[in-house]
Amino acid sequence: MKTYIIGIGLIGGSMALDIKALQPNSKIFGIDSSEKHLQEAMALGIIDEPGKMEDLATADFVIVSVPVDVATVLLLTVLDSIGENTIVFEVGSTKLPICEAVSEHPKRRNFIATHPIAGTEFSGPSAAIKGLFQGKTNIICEVEKTAFKLQEKALGLFRELGMRIRYMEPKSHDKHIAYVSHLSHISAFMLGKTVIQKEKHEQDIFDMAGSGFESTVRLAKSSPAMWTPIFKQNRKQVVKTLEEYISNLTQFKDLLVNEDYTAIFEEMESVNRIKEILNGMGK
Amino acid sequence: MKTYIIGIGLIGGSMALDIKALQPNSKIFGIDSSEKHLQEAMALGIIDEPGKMEDLATADFVIVSVPVDVATVLLLTVLDSIGENTIVFEVGSTKLPICEAVSEHPKRRNFIATHPIAGTEFSGPSAAIKGLFQGKTNIICEVEKTAFKLQEKALGLFRELGMRIRYMEPKSHDKHIAYVSHLSHISAFMLGKTVIQKEKHEQDIFDMAGSGFESTVRLAKSSPAMWTPIFKQNRKQVVKTLEEYISNLTQFKDLLVNEDYTAIFEEMESVNRIKEILNGMGK
Repeated sequence: MKTYIIGIGLIGGSMALDIKALQPNSKIFGIDSSEKHLQEAMALGIIDEPGKMEDLATADFVIVSVPVDVATVLLLTVLDSIGENTIVFEVGSTKLPICEAVSEHPKRRNFIATHPIAGTEFSGPSAAIKGLFQGKTNIICEVEKTAFKLQEKALGLFRELGMRIRYMEPKSHDKHIAYVSHLSHISAFMLGKTVIQKEKHEQDIFDMAGSGFESTVRLAKSSPAMWTPIFKQNRKQVVKTLEEYISNLTQFKDLLVNEDYTAIFEEMESVNRIKEILNGMGK
Repeated sequence: MKTYIIGIGLIGGSMALDIKALQPNSKIFGIDSSEKHLQEAMALGIIDEPGKMEDLATADFVIVSVPVDVATVLLLTVLDSIGENTIVFEVGSTKLPICEAVSEHPKRRNFIATHPIAGTEFSGPSAAIKGLFQGKTNIICEVEKTAFKLQEKALGLFRELGMRIRYMEPKSHDKHIAYVSHLSHISAFMLGKTVIQKEKHEQDIFDMAGSGFESTVRLAKSSPAMWTPIFKQNRKQVVKTLEEYISNLTQFKDLLVNEDYTAIFEEMESVNRIKEILNGMGK
């Protein structure tokens, strides 16, 4: 079995590690615009050797795990190069632009649009970890546009990686993911900014910040190179979530200004239900 | 040695567990307005027996771990009741109102104002855990107002709990903690609210939300009964942090609306430094 990982970062790298563990005799090839990442990936045993786009014709799997703006262009070249039995999947955090970009390609049926809900705030080959996808959800869009045999091949792999599959329309995916992922990243970045602007003596942050602060700001370690294209592609939805979030924060602030502590208590109490929701997620 | 825990929740309960582990022959008494919590604390082995305010005269340590609005009143009664060699400390998330409340009490020198930067989003006796304070910072205010021998007694205990001590002025504490703690809690509550308002079908949240979402919303499980008095006591500072946070979010939203992706990238990149800060915290 031959797998090509295009973009050997957290997601592509972690998938490579798992595939190798599942199928030790298979070969993993890496393609990356960064020579440094390629070398690092080989040194870390994530890939066996560098690959070439010209060789994609003999690939079983091609995983495209690059920033979403690169993906919309790159995928067309990838689809041009693959063989009849190759399944290509892409893993970015927006799905509509990708699906639209490939919709007319003659080899559309060799492609499946996925969004594995898994990750950390780290990037690059050194971020790759084994078992990242175990017990995680993989959201698949437009599954019916992929050829049956290749659907089976891809879904088989996802199940072996330990993933639970959920099917969504790409437009719906992008709308909902704005609320449960994109907004969280912006909230973390702006929280980090607010604190850094204020706390000129960073030692103060060290001393006063507990795990509560750390958890709300953790995502501010994320890669701007990854997230700028995501926000660009999902701009309208993200702006909408920001408007609603800002409105809620402003309302809370006004309650404080007006010293309405009953309302403040009730606001927080009504959100406490998130406990059941998060517990349902096993958190 | 006799320790009285007034308010047997996460903090008081966890301190009781550690004190018992350090000094197995000592006795831990519990005082709580909730009979249910008292029974639970005994069943969990957090306290040895219920205590009475009248017996505080023979206490070595009295730990007041109740909501901050209760504390400002209760502390005066506690100080009325204690003995000459008793050290009382309070552990709430605001320090100025507490310090002002006790400033004129004849037994002021038996009191020390602390804020242990440790906790989880859980509450009540069942939230108590061993070793919660290991490696954590304890912020102490107005240490010079505590009698020398009792300073020594208190600081000795904190060191045995594994805490690192930092001294601050109460006003300064409240100003800074608004940024590194209070704001994080409000951001989490309002993020939770924004998502719940939108995601009427909560199963969607289960399926689409990853650990990123969970970490930014985790604090929304916190107790409104604990946090409403904190926001009330630190109102002006908290409003200030909210204004700045809202301003930063609005600015980011405007960059998106105006499609200024260079600026968006740079915004996130400048906040990436938080990595070093959080890593310095060992996170």
